Amino acid sequence: MEKLRERILAEGKNLGNGILKVDGFINHQVDPVLMDACGQEFSLRFQNVSATKILTAEISGIAPAVMTALHLNLPVVYARKSKPITMPDQIFLTLAPSHTKGRIVELIVSPEYLGAGERVLIIDDFLASGQTILGLVRLAQVAGAKIVGIGALIEKTFEGGRDILAHLNVPIEALARISAMEGEQILFAE
Amino acid sequence: MEKLRERILAEGKNLGNGILKVDGFINHQVDPVLMDACGQEFSLRFQNVSATKILTAEISGIAPAVMTALHLNLPVVYARKSKPITMPDQIFLTLAPSHTKGRIVELIVSPEYLGAGERVLIIDDFLASGQTILGLVRLAQVAGAKIVGIGALIEKTFEGGRDILAHLNVPIEALARISAMEGEQILFAE
Repeated sequence: MEKLRERILAEGKNLGNGILKVDGFINHQVDPVLMDACGQEFSLRFQNVSATKILTAEISGIAPAVMTALHLNLPVVYARKSKPITMPDQIFLTLAPSHTKGRIVELIVSPEYLGAGERVLIIDDFLASGQTILGLVRLAQVAGAKIVGIGALIEKTFEGGRDILAHLNVPIEALARISAMEGEQILFAE
Repeated sequence: MEKLRERILAEGKNLGNGILKVDGFINHQVDPVLMDACGQEFSLRFQNVSATKILTAEISGIAPAVMTALHLNLPVVYARKSKPITMPDQIFLTLAPSHTKGRIVELIVSPEYLGAGERVLIIDDFLASGQTILGLVRLAQVAGAKIVGIGALIEKTFEGGRDILAHLNVPIEALARISAMEGEQILFAE
């Protein structure tokens, strides 16, 4: 998606160790018009997967997931990283290593909002090692739901996430695919 | 706002101790169409405050803030509760007690995205004791920005938040104002 790639080139910063800083329009400050355009693009790419629910992970997945959900007219569930007191005692929980946090995080979903028979579209900000998305896949599977698609704003192709998700045999869409980051240069796969 | 009040009556649950569970459409599962309508309503109520930026707190403030930002065509910054590695060493940080978490949380904003001269509209999911919003006010003030309005999806009028924000002398708008919760009954102020 040209608009997103342009923004990454203009404002993204390679912090080293594979970390791309996009805090000015995705991860701390959000450009809602760009997010809306990304949500619309996802809605087009996934219009034929018959999703019944969108699943994401707090925190940075929320903005793109909610915008995609608006265009597809679907509810969106965001997996929590700590259990709020409003959640029932019986929950779905999985562990996922977080590269940017440098530790293992919990991903928690209430059975109230993810059940058997759901067709789940996963939307997140990054597809890198794929570990967070794989955690969301496990939560959906243990709930008895079926994964029907995976979308990420930005893919770092050199971290191999797409390969570890390939066995799911669902469409994987990324709006900007970064193949390498060298110094101040960010290179796209296409 | 009638649509939001109806949804609260239909699906909100009084968990006791002043906790209102709205996990089915705001706090865990999000109804994007309702959030979009709430964002539009906020954009109308704050159309004359000349805001240049929207400020919210992760996690549950993000969806309503991003939708409001879309309708007002403004960037939105969400205060983080832990410092990500992409943030500079010098940050704005304040502490705020969280009723639902039962502990003190940090609210952190990068000086890169909140500066002197900004006119800040605060949007959050709840206005209860007002402590989280007051934390956001402090962050904006220390950045040299000016608060021009405060909006919350749901106000619990019996927790006094509006009073502790009154000294700011800015419009405070809540889309649903709850005056009491007794057993299974939720009563609105209007």
